[in-house]
Amino acid sequence: MALVIALDGMGGDSAPEIVVDGAGMALRGHADLRFLLFGDESRIAPLLPAHPELAGRIELVHTPDFVAADAKPSQAVRQGRNSSMRLSIDAVRSGAAAAAVSAGNTGALMGMATVVLRTLPGIDRPAIAATLPTRRKPVIVLDLGANVVCTDDNLLQFGVMGEVFSRVVLGVPKPRVGLLNIGTEELKGDDVVRQAATRLKDASLHIDFIGFIEGHDVTDGVADVVVTDGFTGNVALKIAEGTAGMFTAALREIFTSGWRSRLGYLIARPALRKLRDRFDPRRYNGAMFLGLNGVVVKSHGGTDALGFANAIHVAADLVRRRTNERIIEEMAELASRRPATPAAAAS
Amino acid sequence: MALVIALDGMGGDSAPEIVVDGAGMALRGHADLRFLLFGDESRIAPLLPAHPELAGRIELVHTPDFVAADAKPSQAVRQGRNSSMRLSIDAVRSGAAAAAVSAGNTGALMGMATVVLRTLPGIDRPAIAATLPTRRKPVIVLDLGANVVCTDDNLLQFGVMGEVFSRVVLGVPKPRVGLLNIGTEELKGDDVVRQAATRLKDASLHIDFIGFIEGHDVTDGVADVVVTDGFTGNVALKIAEGTAGMFTAALREIFTSGWRSRLGYLIARPALRKLRDRFDPRRYNGAMFLGLNGVVVKSHGGTDALGFANAIHVAADLVRRRTNERIIEEMAELASRRPATPAAAAS
Repeated sequence: MALVIALDGMGGDSAPEIVVDGAGMALRGHADLRFLLFGDESRIAPLLPAHPELAGRIELVHTPDFVAADAKPSQAVRQGRNSSMRLSIDAVRSGAAAAAVSAGNTGALMGMATVVLRTLPGIDRPAIAATLPTRRKPVIVLDLGANVVCTDDNLLQFGVMGEVFSRVVLGVPKPRVGLLNIGTEELKGDDVVRQAATRLKDASLHIDFIGFIEGHDVTDGVADVVVTDGFTGNVALKIAEGTAGMFTAALREIFTSGWRSRLGYLIARPALRKLRDRFDPRRYNGAMFLGLNGVVVKSHGGTDALGFANAIHVAADLVRRRTNERIIEEMAELASRRPATPAAAAS
Repeated sequence: MALVIALDGMGGDSAPEIVVDGAGMALRGHADLRFLLFGDESRIAPLLPAHPELAGRIELVHTPDFVAADAKPSQAVRQGRNSSMRLSIDAVRSGAAAAAVSAGNTGALMGMATVVLRTLPGIDRPAIAATLPTRRKPVIVLDLGANVVCTDDNLLQFGVMGEVFSRVVLGVPKPRVGLLNIGTEELKGDDVVRQAATRLKDASLHIDFIGFIEGHDVTDGVADVVVTDGFTGNVALKIAEGTAGMFTAALREIFTSGWRSRLGYLIARPALRKLRDRFDPRRYNGAMFLGLNGVVVKSHGGTDALGFANAIHVAADLVRRRTNERIIEEMAELASRRPATPAAAAS
């Protein structure tokens, strides 16, 4: 059966080119994908002849309006009702598409998606989630910036959503869920993380809660799911990306710094390419908006076709694994187990 | 004139060996240093004959009591009055030493130092600060974990202290101070960071406040001073260290993965060693407890003699540059410029 993905053709630094190229690339090995592409026909139509693989698999909906990269989210939500971003999300709501993918303005996309799709039963706030490389298997981290301030309820829900993703999409049999903190002792952190730890410990369900973890534990692969507030998560993600970029740049500098280093590079190149591929940010592109009543994935604005294709696959996986239905089931079970007074669980 | 540093001989994974070795190493190029070493004589005395360079430059004060690595800070403060850690700090208070260096329990050291030394005039809370490598010059980041929850007052004071350190110790003529956030727009973040931004903008003094910066800006070297709360700073530091460690491990794995890669490594080795040296964590060892009425530096517990020697140099630099006196001056000037009602400055 075909799986239709709505694409925001106008979002991202190199739209619409990388969107069309990415859609074509996403078909490889995923012949069931179909695309509903929203964007400016005069810019997109000329790109299609170069992609015969998309023929009969893509429908272009002329949408001249788009959300600017620097638009204020609140303004975009109000004024962007005919934008390519908004119509992509509307297509998920109407059922015309199973998921939406955009490389546009993150805040606007989250705002629109929340207004249009609302949250899943039992989920108060959606979270931005992404997989990151570690020394072992990739880890899912959430929230990465949707919620600057979080309650223990929010963090508990993020834990449930992350665990479901890890289990049903990544196939981890019993995901270890860790709560990001500045130490592993029970007394560390503020009231919210300590209360969230109590809640996650009591939640049972499928959750293998391993307690507090620290920053270096994330990259050490100590957990399969890392739960944190959106402020900490966003800073952590970006400083990890920054550190990786700094190392990559320093390595590149070294391997072009003289004939001897260049020769060493040429000889070690096959292995160094494996290293590059392993940490290639494009392989991890596609941030999921978990907790919404519909699948929406945000591609990095600066990615290329390969990265955009990966974001499409992330969206398709979420749909195929019926992730949202599983989250609803978990939250219903959690609610049925929770004591009548929420305060009692936190005490 | 001699500069006396009090050393906690029993703190850290490899104490007292690395403390003694580090003290000896610290003398190279710093012949004015003298040490007051607190620790178990039966374990330390046998180490000294191997260090003729320390003869006449180190005084050993027999101190059998020490703070355990896993001690609860509050308990250590109450019960560790005769510990090597506490006596090192007491020596700063009495004037017997100009600074104290310990590789022991961070929480206990901060707790004891705050109780014994108190904060500088104008400073409400001390901060843990450290320099980190970036693509450009090293940056100073604070707070790294002393204050889980911060007020805008705290963040403003961290900015002033960081700026003084950058200017008088690192020699940056006009340090750029950035406030860590999840976006650079004025509306991003929670109330505290937004109010702190207003305060830092209004502070004038020497502060070149460049506004909000994001995680990747830290490693890009966009700022000379990065201000953040202790929760975010601690997670950011540890995930940056974790990412660096992950890369280093992956590189090592690759360069030992077959004869071809090994050969490439051997050829490129001189350049790769430069890379290793540039990011060597030992070169950045020595977290400063800024804002205390006395100089206290925390060495990483797992460092070696070179790292410990670096922490000693960090302490000596803080003393030589009269950093605390400069902070007091800045805070006094800030207070004289501040409107009568603190609330008015934050609005």
